[in-house]
Amino acid sequence: MNDVLTQVHEGLERTLARLKRALAQPSIAAQNLGMAEMAELLTGELRSVGFSVESVPTQGAPVLLARLEGRRPDYLLFYNHYDVQPPEPVELWTSPPFEPTVREGKLYARGVADNKGAIFARLAAVESYLRARGRLPVGIAWVIEGEEEIGSVHLHQFVEARAELLRHALGCLWEAGGRNATDRYEIALGCKGILYVELRVRGAARDLHSAMAAIVPNPAWRLAWALENLKGPDERVQLPGFYESVRPPTPAQRALLAAWDYPEDEVRQLYGIPAFLEGLTGPALKERLLFGPTCNICGFHSGYGGPGSKTVLPAEAVAKLDFRLVPDQAPEEIVKALRAHLDAQGFTDVEIAWWEGERPFAGDPERPFVQKAVRAAERVYSHKPTVLPLMAGTGPVHLLCGQFGVPIVTAGVGYADSRAHAPDENIRLADFVQGIEYVAAVLDELEQG
Amino acid sequence: MNDVLTQVHEGLERTLARLKRALAQPSIAAQNLGMAEMAELLTGELRSVGFSVESVPTQGAPVLLARLEGRRPDYLLFYNHYDVQPPEPVELWTSPPFEPTVREGKLYARGVADNKGAIFARLAAVESYLRARGRLPVGIAWVIEGEEEIGSVHLHQFVEARAELLRHALGCLWEAGGRNATDRYEIALGCKGILYVELRVRGAARDLHSAMAAIVPNPAWRLAWALENLKGPDERVQLPGFYESVRPPTPAQRALLAAWDYPEDEVRQLYGIPAFLEGLTGPALKERLLFGPTCNICGFHSGYGGPGSKTVLPAEAVAKLDFRLVPDQAPEEIVKALRAHLDAQGFTDVEIAWWEGERPFAGDPERPFVQKAVRAAERVYSHKPTVLPLMAGTGPVHLLCGQFGVPIVTAGVGYADSRAHAPDENIRLADFVQGIEYVAAVLDELEQG
Repeated sequence: MNDVLTQVHEGLERTLARLKRALAQPSIAAQNLGMAEMAELLTGELRSVGFSVESVPTQGAPVLLARLEGRRPDYLLFYNHYDVQPPEPVELWTSPPFEPTVREGKLYARGVADNKGAIFARLAAVESYLRARGRLPVGIAWVIEGEEEIGSVHLHQFVEARAELLRHALGCLWEAGGRNATDRYEIALGCKGILYVELRVRGAARDLHSAMAAIVPNPAWRLAWALENLKGPDERVQLPGFYESVRPPTPAQRALLAAWDYPEDEVRQLYGIPAFLEGLTGPALKERLLFGPTCNICGFHSGYGGPGSKTVLPAEAVAKLDFRLVPDQAPEEIVKALRAHLDAQGFTDVEIAWWEGERPFAGDPERPFVQKAVRAAERVYSHKPTVLPLMAGTGPVHLLCGQFGVPIVTAGVGYADSRAHAPDENIRLADFVQGIEYVAAVLDELEQG
Repeated sequence: MNDVLTQVHEGLERTLARLKRALAQPSIAAQNLGMAEMAELLTGELRSVGFSVESVPTQGAPVLLARLEGRRPDYLLFYNHYDVQPPEPVELWTSPPFEPTVREGKLYARGVADNKGAIFARLAAVESYLRARGRLPVGIAWVIEGEEEIGSVHLHQFVEARAELLRHALGCLWEAGGRNATDRYEIALGCKGILYVELRVRGAARDLHSAMAAIVPNPAWRLAWALENLKGPDERVQLPGFYESVRPPTPAQRALLAAWDYPEDEVRQLYGIPAFLEGLTGPALKERLLFGPTCNICGFHSGYGGPGSKTVLPAEAVAKLDFRLVPDQAPEEIVKALRAHLDAQGFTDVEIAWWEGERPFAGDPERPFVQKAVRAAERVYSHKPTVLPLMAGTGPVHLLCGQFGVPIVTAGVGYADSRAHAPDENIRLADFVQGIEYVAAVLDELEQG
């Protein structure tokens, strides 16, 4: 496919200029800043390459749906998002977050790794392919939402409106990913689900002098006891049925785990921990990370937290928990089990103030689309990529693709020090170029049908 | 003692002017504001009545020690403090906190109830007594510290320096107190002790994405489990030996409890709670409030506490606990038991970051000094005062008096709505006048020897 690669390299200057324009445009969903401007900029770029672009309304930011016909009637999905994380704390950036800057072969800007770099790599790949060959082998339906960084809160409205389009796709290039800590290219085929809950206990109408603790109930104690009833030091989640719907990895998924060179020592050193949870290591560690559901305290707040002592009996205690879910756990069932368990254990006073959830999805490495994506990676990166049946994190994979049986592969331009969500977010320019080549190679694999 | 009361009433205008001058002088120990000025003002007032005044240095604010000879060589202690709580939030005050203002028979100002009102009531009582009779029946050694509102952190230095003086006192008028919620005059003979500890657990070197909760230990879970190991829903403190040194109330103390008309319904309504802890009521409630030691969570903080969801694995969890102690529990022994218990239960990772403590002291109503004080209250208030063997709160009673076997009685000018430590702190002027009369009556009781 030297014809396509020639176009990639000849167009590189134009591609980088486009990317930098997009990086200079803030698009912060959490602050509703620059969202319409970014959608307009992107629409223009997509149209200039030949896409027809539709802005599909939701109750939040519209979803851009860009379409391009191929030689065959079947089509690929691309999934990306045009919103970015807030840049704060701005003072920790070496160069301003919305002034894209190249230093030592790296391009720095908010959103360059997550995920404007990937968007423009894909656009360049499609453009180069068209210039070299006139037509794509298959069509593309490109979904670019504007609320990924705030939990894809309205994406389900798009999915309901365009279910038939999503259902018949042959596969999806998902956002995120790139090279891992050992510089190996990494492809994930799914992600964990999540149940996020806020638990709240109320005591007296206001904070009291702690002398009253002798006779007035303390909501912080109630919450600590309720949590201990959810999970004790054996790390086993006590909700009845919690593990019943957990499906063990398939032999093919296990083979992926076995081939995964997880850099245990580097991760332990990076996190500054003497050992992993329960002393896990080797295959058990990898399986727990990807196929183990969690029950995690994201926050616990009650009473006085300042310096020194204050003798107070708090009026309220709040905890935020996330359960990372694995196939086939469903957040709406887990939250029901949580309410029933709290009640059964005598914690009717522990309110579930609110909850939100996403379903998990683990991919099958034997799907033909996945195998083509892996072959494309081998061609571009000259090594066998790491393939993970799912990520430990969460995204709307099940919502957009998993529920329709559409396989996904991640395709990003990041690396281990890309600092997504953090100051000095960056990508390496060499990775960016290979990211273009990789998408072109996936299209080339699809030429064979 | 009409001779003394005549002087009290004739001097009332002068007394109120003195009190207002002292209230207009901020003396906030926590902010080191106006402390020297207040000590100077007070020294002048004390000397004008005939006291010799010494400023006893500590590593913090000096302790004022004022002395006056009596007819007999024995002497009474007065204990007060010249510091006040910070006035914040200032915007919630009806009139400025350091501009003493009378509205509807009440005098409003920071520190008027806690405890400048009591200081000037005592000063007026002594002055009136001297004017009427020329001499006090016994001497007075008046201890006025400047750090009560920040935990009397250096008072022990004064106590070490003046142990002989303290040891031989015949009794002490303690600060605080006044009329209770049913307007009955209330005298307490001691107070609970305290052990205040900060517990801390550290996890990874920084907050991590909560996807890592599958394999990285969470300090918030560790702390919740450690707390549950200290006290479970049965409210029983699990530290070995915790209850062994608890001395049950004596028959005389039990008789005081039985005579105490604790306003259960009013307290429940005020606090907005449907029931007291464990459904306690009646005699059991009163005994628990005064003779029950506690283990209370004053604060628990870890991870994200803002609005909505953030998926984080916290790097640290901190809890602040106070144990209210009853005779003969000692904070230095309880903290040893706490460390040993945490270790024995596998919580060696839970640090005791720091601790501080005070010992408890419960008084004996049969001591002659206490009986004189009770008789004085009956004369002034025309009803039997409520006498409590100890308060549910904590103060340096054991340090200053209890350890030397010196009995105390509280003698304050507050009432149920005095709002000590809160905006619109106030006393009723009628209570202030009776507070002067009460101290005069105590002195008169001591005429009989």
